[in-house]
Amino acid sequence: MLQPLPGTEIADFDTPVLVVDIDAVQRNIEKMAAIARQAGVALRPHAKTHKSPIFARRQVVAGAVGVCCQKVGEAEVMAAGGVTDILVTNEIIGRVKLARLAGLARIVQIRTVADDAEAVAWLGKAARSAGVTIGVLVDCDLGHARTGLADPRAAAELGKTIALTDGLRFDGLQAYHGSIQHTEGWQARKAAADAANARLQGFRSAFAEARLACAIVSGAGTGTFAFQPAAAGYTEWQCGSYLFMDKEYRDAKGEDGGPYRVFEHALTVLASVVSVAGAEHCVVDAGYKSMSVDGGDPEVQGLPGWTFGFAGDEHGRLRHTAKDGAARPKLGDKVHLVPGHGDTTINLHDDYYVVSGGRLVGVWPVAARGRVR
Amino acid sequence: MLQPLPGTEIADFDTPVLVVDIDAVQRNIEKMAAIARQAGVALRPHAKTHKSPIFARRQVVAGAVGVCCQKVGEAEVMAAGGVTDILVTNEIIGRVKLARLAGLARIVQIRTVADDAEAVAWLGKAARSAGVTIGVLVDCDLGHARTGLADPRAAAELGKTIALTDGLRFDGLQAYHGSIQHTEGWQARKAAADAANARLQGFRSAFAEARLACAIVSGAGTGTFAFQPAAAGYTEWQCGSYLFMDKEYRDAKGEDGGPYRVFEHALTVLASVVSVAGAEHCVVDAGYKSMSVDGGDPEVQGLPGWTFGFAGDEHGRLRHTAKDGAARPKLGDKVHLVPGHGDTTINLHDDYYVVSGGRLVGVWPVAARGRVR
Repeated sequence: MLQPLPGTEIADFDTPVLVVDIDAVQRNIEKMAAIARQAGVALRPHAKTHKSPIFARRQVVAGAVGVCCQKVGEAEVMAAGGVTDILVTNEIIGRVKLARLAGLARIVQIRTVADDAEAVAWLGKAARSAGVTIGVLVDCDLGHARTGLADPRAAAELGKTIALTDGLRFDGLQAYHGSIQHTEGWQARKAAADAANARLQGFRSAFAEARLACAIVSGAGTGTFAFQPAAAGYTEWQCGSYLFMDKEYRDAKGEDGGPYRVFEHALTVLASVVSVAGAEHCVVDAGYKSMSVDGGDPEVQGLPGWTFGFAGDEHGRLRHTAKDGAARPKLGDKVHLVPGHGDTTINLHDDYYVVSGGRLVGVWPVAARGRVR
Repeated sequence: MLQPLPGTEIADFDTPVLVVDIDAVQRNIEKMAAIARQAGVALRPHAKTHKSPIFARRQVVAGAVGVCCQKVGEAEVMAAGGVTDILVTNEIIGRVKLARLAGLARIVQIRTVADDAEAVAWLGKAARSAGVTIGVLVDCDLGHARTGLADPRAAAELGKTIALTDGLRFDGLQAYHGSIQHTEGWQARKAAADAANARLQGFRSAFAEARLACAIVSGAGTGTFAFQPAAAGYTEWQCGSYLFMDKEYRDAKGEDGGPYRVFEHALTVLASVVSVAGAEHCVVDAGYKSMSVDGGDPEVQGLPGWTFGFAGDEHGRLRHTAKDGAARPKLGDKVHLVPGHGDTTINLHDDYYVVSGGRLVGVWPVAARGRVR
C-alpha cells in the first residue's frame, strides 16, 4: 500500500492507521526495565503485544533477557529479526509445529512449556530428530483453569519426566495466571495475586522435595508484576502490555492507579470522520476490522464528552454523552482512539505508523501479525 | 510460512487455520445467483466477506454484475485480481483515498456513495484531476442511523448536486440497512425490512419529483434479500455472507429458516487440542487472534454436547455442557469451529486452506485482509 514519507504530519495520514509515539514507548520500556532491575527479577517481555523484532530489540537493549512468544510463528519472526532467547509460553502440539520449534532451537535459545507426559515425549522426539536441546518449563495452573497442571505432585512428576527425556532440559516453572491481570481494583488484584503466589509455593515445595532445581520461574504480567516479586519465587516477568498501555489495563487500575500511572498510552488508532449526515452523531472509518472488541470499546482521545460505539466492520459512531465538552468534529477531521485491548487491535494491522513530535518517523511492519500457527 | 502440499488431508493441517470447502462454496454461489436471477435483481456480492479476487471471479462467472467493497484498498485488490465493476459502499473522505479511488476509475468501472455536498465537491475534484468519471449513489438512511441522509428531499438535493458536478455521474441510490440483517426471527425481520422499504419509497418519490432517474438502487444483504425485491425498488443486492454462511446469520433465521436452509456452512476454523490437563475441560489453540468475537462464540462442529468459550488471544476452552454427547477429545485432536461472524474472522487470517473431499486443493491468500484504508 502507499506509504507516507518520513516527516509527514499525523493530520495528513490516511486512515484508519495504528499510530505509535516512539518517545512514549521508549519511556515505557525504560521504566519497566528499571522496575524489574530494582526488583531483582529478569524481564522477558511478551512479544505477542508488539509482534515486532524492532520493539523486541529495544527491550533487550534496555535489559530484557529475551522475549516470550505464544506461537512458533511468532518465535520464527523474532529469531529472524535478531532476538536470540525465546520462551514459547504455550503448549506446542502437532508434528509440523514441533519440527519448526526444534528447527528454531538450532539458531537461538528456545524454551517452551508442557503440562502432559505424552506431549513431553513428542517434544523430546522432535528435539532429538533435529539434534537440539529444548528447555522446558512445567506449566503450573495457579487458578486460571486454562492450561497447566493444578496438582503440585503431578507437576513435579512431569518435571522428572522432562529431566529424563533425551533432547529436553528441565528449566523450571511457568507460573502465569492470565485472568487476574485485569481484576478490578488494586487491593482486589493484590488479593488474587497473593492467592496465586500461595499456590506457587505449593509447586515450589513439591519440586524441592523431588530435588528438581527450578532455574526459572516465569510469570506475572503488566497487571500483576507489582504483586509477584522475587520473594514470592518469581525469577522473571512476562509483562507485555506496558509497552503501549491499553485502556483495559488502565481502567482496571483501582483506586490509586499504582504503577499504572507511570506508563503512558503510546498507541492509538487514528480515524477520520466520514459522515456527519446524522443529526447528533458522526461516523468514523474504523470499526471491527481496525479495533478489537474483546477489551471493550475504545476511548476517544482529546474530545471531551464524546464516546465511541462500534457500528460495523468499518464504521464507528461518535456520540456526545456529556453536558459539556467539545464541539462535533467536522467532516474529514482526524480522531485518536485508545484501543480497549492493544494486543488484538495491533493484530488487525499490517503496519505501525511510528511518530515523534507529531511527525512520521517510519512505517514499521507488524511482522508477526497473524502468525497464529 | 510453511504450506502443505495439495492432497494433504485436513487431519494433517497445522492449526489454527481457516478451512473452506470449495464444493459447498460453489453450491452457495450458484444458489444465490439463481435466486437473484429469478427475482430479476442484479447481484453485486460484497467482497468484504471473502476479500479474495478468486471468489469474486467465481461470483461473476455465476452471473454477478461486479462486487461491492467497503474500502479503496479492497477495491484495489479486486481490480488487480481481474474484477472490472466495483461499488465502494462507504463514504470516501481524505486526499490520499480520493486520489487512489480516482486512479482506480482509470482501469475499472468505479462507483461510490455520498451523503454530503462538501464530500461530493471533493470527489468531483479528484475525478477531474484524474480525468475520469466516477458514478455516485446517494447514501439513504433507511433507519440504521449510521451514514446516509434520512430526509428524502435533502437526498434528492444531493443527487442534483452530484448530477451537476463535473467528473461525477449520478447513478442512483444506496439503500442498505445494516442493523436489520440480524433481526431475530423471520417475521420480525420481514417487518423491519418492510419498514425500510417504506422509507425507500419516500426516497424514490423525492428523486422522481426532482426528475432524477435512479438507474441503480443497491441494497439488501444475506439477512434481508428475500424481503427486498425488485417490486420494492431494488435493482441490485449486496449480499456477501451467503458465500460461507456464518453462525450469526443462521442463528437469527427464525422459525422456519427460510432461505437460510439452502446455504451451507462452508468455512470453519480448524483448531487442535493442546491441553487436557484440566479435570473437565480441554483447551484448543484458537482464541481472539483466530476468531472474531463480535458475532458471538463459535460453535463446535461434530462434537455433540461441547461448547467453546474464548480463553485469551490464543486459547479456547471446550466444555461439556450437555448430559450426553461426545467423549472429550484427546491431546492433538482436531476440532472444527464455525465462526460467529465470518467477515471479521477471515480478516484475522492470511490464507484460506481450500479443501475438496477432505483434502487440500490449494492455499489461497486472503488478499484484501487488513485493507482498512
